Amino acid sequence: MDRYIVISSDCHAGLPGHMYRDYVDPALRDTFDIAYPLQAQRIKAAEKAFLIQEINDQWREGIEQQLTGAWDHEERTRMLDADGIAGEVIFVDGVTEMNTPPFGAGLSLPTKDIVPDLQWAGARAHNRWLAELCSRAPARHFGVAVMPLLWDVELAVKELRIAHASGLRGAMIPNLTAPFPHYHHRRYDPFWEACEQLGVVVCFHSGAAPNEEFFGPGWPDRADADYPGAMGIYVSEILWWTYRPLSFLIWGGVFERFPRLKVSFTETGCGWMLPPYLRLLDHNYHDVQFSAKLGDFRSHLSMSPSDYFRRNVAIGQSCMPRSDAEMRHEIGLPQLMWGSDYPHPEGSWPHTAPHLQKTFSGLPDADIAAILGENAIRFYGFDRDALAGVASRIGPRRVDFNTI
Amino acid sequence: MDRYIVISSDCHAGLPGHMYRDYVDPALRDTFDIAYPLQAQRIKAAEKAFLIQEINDQWREGIEQQLTGAWDHEERTRMLDADGIAGEVIFVDGVTEMNTPPFGAGLSLPTKDIVPDLQWAGARAHNRWLAELCSRAPARHFGVAVMPLLWDVELAVKELRIAHASGLRGAMIPNLTAPFPHYHHRRYDPFWEACEQLGVVVCFHSGAAPNEEFFGPGWPDRADADYPGAMGIYVSEILWWTYRPLSFLIWGGVFERFPRLKVSFTETGCGWMLPPYLRLLDHNYHDVQFSAKLGDFRSHLSMSPSDYFRRNVAIGQSCMPRSDAEMRHEIGLPQLMWGSDYPHPEGSWPHTAPHLQKTFSGLPDADIAAILGENAIRFYGFDRDALAGVASRIGPRRVDFNTI
Repeated sequence: MDRYIVISSDCHAGLPGHMYRDYVDPALRDTFDIAYPLQAQRIKAAEKAFLIQEINDQWREGIEQQLTGAWDHEERTRMLDADGIAGEVIFVDGVTEMNTPPFGAGLSLPTKDIVPDLQWAGARAHNRWLAELCSRAPARHFGVAVMPLLWDVELAVKELRIAHASGLRGAMIPNLTAPFPHYHHRRYDPFWEACEQLGVVVCFHSGAAPNEEFFGPGWPDRADADYPGAMGIYVSEILWWTYRPLSFLIWGGVFERFPRLKVSFTETGCGWMLPPYLRLLDHNYHDVQFSAKLGDFRSHLSMSPSDYFRRNVAIGQSCMPRSDAEMRHEIGLPQLMWGSDYPHPEGSWPHTAPHLQKTFSGLPDADIAAILGENAIRFYGFDRDALAGVASRIGPRRVDFNTI
Repeated sequence: MDRYIVISSDCHAGLPGHMYRDYVDPALRDTFDIAYPLQAQRIKAAEKAFLIQEINDQWREGIEQQLTGAWDHEERTRMLDADGIAGEVIFVDGVTEMNTPPFGAGLSLPTKDIVPDLQWAGARAHNRWLAELCSRAPARHFGVAVMPLLWDVELAVKELRIAHASGLRGAMIPNLTAPFPHYHHRRYDPFWEACEQLGVVVCFHSGAAPNEEFFGPGWPDRADADYPGAMGIYVSEILWWTYRPLSFLIWGGVFERFPRLKVSFTETGCGWMLPPYLRLLDHNYHDVQFSAKLGDFRSHLSMSPSDYFRRNVAIGQSCMPRSDAEMRHEIGLPQLMWGSDYPHPEGSWPHTAPHLQKTFSGLPDADIAAILGENAIRFYGFDRDALAGVASRIGPRRVDFNTI
């Protein structure tokens, strides 16, 4: 084929807040009617505290129709086609975007000021709606269910089976676990086991961080001038908070006990941080002198940390700079999956074609094909033949990439 | 001179716990008599939870006399001389070592289960004793005062002036700040101002981490089998928790407001993590697209993050692997200071001579001299002439290093 199959490993979808009402459990619709206006206020406050309102307004101006692709399937399909994207992995939206589920069931899955039953209700509402959206073109859309795993692991397993039966194939769980144990704890084993058994990919997506530590207590309702540089700290640490579960999963032996479990980390930025991080984990596994006094903490692992990474993990790199493409072998070529981040302003949409050429031009053809689509096809289990049909119509042409 | 001036940028000193009694404020000695046996129990529990008792016992066996150099000046001088070390930066010991100050004033400076007045009393006791120790040979010993800064910044400034007047020239503050604001907060400005004015170096030393998150609540009193791999997570994250204040200081504009403030990070391990970390900070400073929606969080900084690092920061690398020496230019040659970690088992003591040759052999003479001593002389302000006199007698011979 003269075109690449492109999969965006990082897209987002969500209804305008009030439209989630129809997807909430009927018994909770009265609660929704009371809580939604309060939530809308809070979203506005977060947007104001976190984002530059003018820039967002400016970004949205003139593309209002295209942005309805966040929930409208026809518009979304036009956007994917125009961007040359055959398939996509769909995450929920965060609290600072326009379209986020009710009751704190958005991208960050916070545990503070949250009613667990309601957060689950919001998650279920989103998962129901997302399953519907994906069912419109199942080969093109890989839907990631929202899973507030921490409160009750048994309930999460039950909800996972429901989401999977409805057609969703990924499960996004929180990046931050406090005040609950982190992911090395045995309490999560039934969830890993169910994911492995069903073939559901466990997904982490960047967004959550200890914002009150950066911006002051009461965030986002209060912006405190006593905390200069808070946003710089946020953008510098967010990568760490997103990758952090990897240490707990690896050292906790999760991949040892569940060798077919798949875990992805998405929008983690700056791929150059990953090779030294994996080298550090391997160093701690192999180098004994410096930690001899700490005992043997390796004997329950049959492989070194980077081996688990290569076997069980993949990376969804949206906003991917060319330097990441150049470091593809150090990062791990088979682990690297490109993403557009549609419909977020920091992503490549609606200028994906020139972005792709800038990022990949001149690299080997097979490497470009792997990062743009083949890795995601293999890792997430897309139907390659179905996507090839789409790509033959809308995919970027190989001839435009000066491949070697 | 045919020998190198060697400074260990990471050494530790402390009295056996009961001997701190004489240095505690007289009004608190009754409290000490009640609290000390409880503390001794807690230290034993921590040692048991955290360290392999047998390895520590084995390590101590046969070198009991040499380890008294942790507090005995004559023995300490013999150890430094035998190791070829002319000068040293002296940190307090942690809770898992034998010789730690009372009331939680050790290396980790915890805030949990701590009485602030008592932690300060323990810190003062240690600082008084350490000033005495350093006064025995002021040119060779750079003493780092213990500063539980978080509780009361005004009090800390007062104690800083007392410690400085007694001859101490560094101030170790906590790596973890919760439940207090982190170091970008303006509340710490009087402390930075005083350090800058007095020429006191602000010191961070690895050790503290959120142990309960790794090992389970109640640590060290309870070891929970539900948390497999906890020690692997600790050793993989400790570097992050130690470097973390750097982000807050840089983005918080602390180095912008206090351009002559000096800050060191010690025993941070694995130098290869630093270049990508600084590259990340610079990326967040220079690259606007991905974060445009987050507003301008750079305008209060006149330089890029790595510029502040090069101007205001140095790194004390104990247990330094050869790979760090080979990466000296990427890490920052002027920032890199070797350390022995005496009297800890993970350090080079008592085999420093072969360790130095293994780590540095074949590198350029000037680079070895810089990392072994000249950088620390400049950064910490050692008296070079005095140390040259010592080194001419005990320093490692240049001829043994096959320099280029």
